[in-house]
Amino acid sequence: MSAAPARDMRPLAGPARPHRLAMVASKGTLDGAYPPLILAATAVSLGWEVGIFFTFYGLDIIHRKKHRKLKVPSLANPAMPVPVPSLVGMLPGMTAVATAMMKRWMKKSRLPDVGQFLDIAREGGVRLFACSTTMGVMGVGAKDLVEGVDIAGATAFLDFAADADVSLFV
Amino acid sequence: MSAAPARDMRPLAGPARPHRLAMVASKGTLDGAYPPLILAATAVSLGWEVGIFFTFYGLDIIHRKKHRKLKVPSLANPAMPVPVPSLVGMLPGMTAVATAMMKRWMKKSRLPDVGQFLDIAREGGVRLFACSTTMGVMGVGAKDLVEGVDIAGATAFLDFAADADVSLFV
Amino acid sequence: MSAAPARDMRPLAGPARPHRLAMVASKGTLDGAYPPLILAATAVSLGWEVGIFFTFYGLDIIHRKKHRKLKVPSLANPAMPVPVPSLVGMLPGMTAVATAMMKRWMKKSRLPDVGQFLDIAREGGVRLFACSTTMGVMGVGAKDLVEGVDIAGATAFLDFAADADVSLFV
Repeated sequence: MSAAPARDMRPLAGPARPHRLAMVASKGTLDGAYPPLILAATAVSLGWEVGIFFTFYGLDIIHRKKHRKLKVPSLANPAMPVPVPSLVGMLPGMTAVATAMMKRWMKKSRLPDVGQFLDIAREGGVRLFACSTTMGVMGVGAKDLVEGVDIAGATAFLDFAADADVSLFV
Repeated sequence: MSAAPARDMRPLAGPARPHRLAMVASKGTLDGAYPPLILAATAVSLGWEVGIFFTFYGLDIIHRKKHRKLKVPSLANPAMPVPVPSLVGMLPGMTAVATAMMKRWMKKSRLPDVGQFLDIAREGGVRLFACSTTMGVMGVGAKDLVEGVDIAGATAFLDFAADADVSLFV
Repeated sequence: MSAAPARDMRPLAGPARPHRLAMVASKGTLDGAYPPLILAATAVSLGWEVGIFFTFYGLDIIHRKKHRKLKVPSLANPAMPVPVPSLVGMLPGMTAVATAMMKRWMKKSRLPDVGQFLDIAREGGVRLFACSTTMGVMGVGAKDLVEGVDIAGATAFLDFAADADVSLFV
């Protein structure tokens, strides 16, 4: 069996490696933050390895201050549970209304909020990457990030994702 | 160890399993519904196993009434085939115009509509999952769903996706 | 060869194949174009095989004229680095402002522009597919496409993605 290149070879024996989920989180809205956080928490509870690469607007999800203030856009969102016509949706305050509605639903469904999901992720060993390339573009500095985040480039994400069973761009 | 083509080799024994495509459908717009439905129909025609997990706004795609009324947002969509300036885009009726345009194009291209795509999916054995966690959030009940949908949590999606060759979050 | 777990087993001999990244690019905004282009360029630099399937609005990224004019929507984008209230965001010109801001940041970060990224992709052997099904829908003809693009259906994408290590829908 000699020296087969190790790169893609999987263990022939020994314990099965855990499943792995790699996600890119590129959106900075409340409804864009929940899917990767819910999937991460679920995967961790199943014993999976999970990594999330936050990039572009998604950096707001791990922004110390902004993650508490993510919003649900009311405009250009014809699928909002209560549809908001364009002329109404553009009134100042409608985004606040849509955001409050989703937060109320989340609470009623006993879903953790973004900060609590980040705690669950960290406790579950989820690897959190902040995209170094777009931090500059988005005006996010190292000090703006919540605890436990690694600043890294797209290379780090691809390295992690290369061995993932499931990869998703959110 | 002879000259088996290395790249695509599957397990050495037993019949090859079919390819598998796992998708999350999170958008409730017409242009957000078509990509997963087209990919599902194509994959099924190639003999793949396919599963779609409908969550958040994507639940509208499998909503008995709403799937017929999905819309194309005219606002915040600078890439619309015919660009709609913001002040015009917010006039009531512009979303209707954008939606009618896309439906006309779909028909001209002889693409099935959403309901027909759902039929194709079911006939092809596509597994349709409605996200139990966000059904509550989005105010969607079991009776609102089209036939042939399983209500399930993110765990069911991850179980299905763990063995997928291709996983996509739409 | 005894009872190695079959599921994750890879070929036992032969040279290691390169990693492969398969992406769908479905958005026609500037902030929707950058993630697949950055990931493609990064993956190529790591020796990966890369393919991008441009569909729906994403066709604008490989449109000879339009790829130079991609915009950042100011509306419905509460996560814009400088948040734009809805009433202001809908003023004509605000999308232009948001677009100019992102282009300036890109330049400051020394990121290539879309045209330069397409050059990097082609030089790196990235396979560029234009979705034949939606070209008609979006009114894009073969002559509108930049050099080096193959017109193909979803089948071609799935064939390519079936062997990918990482697949992403952007």
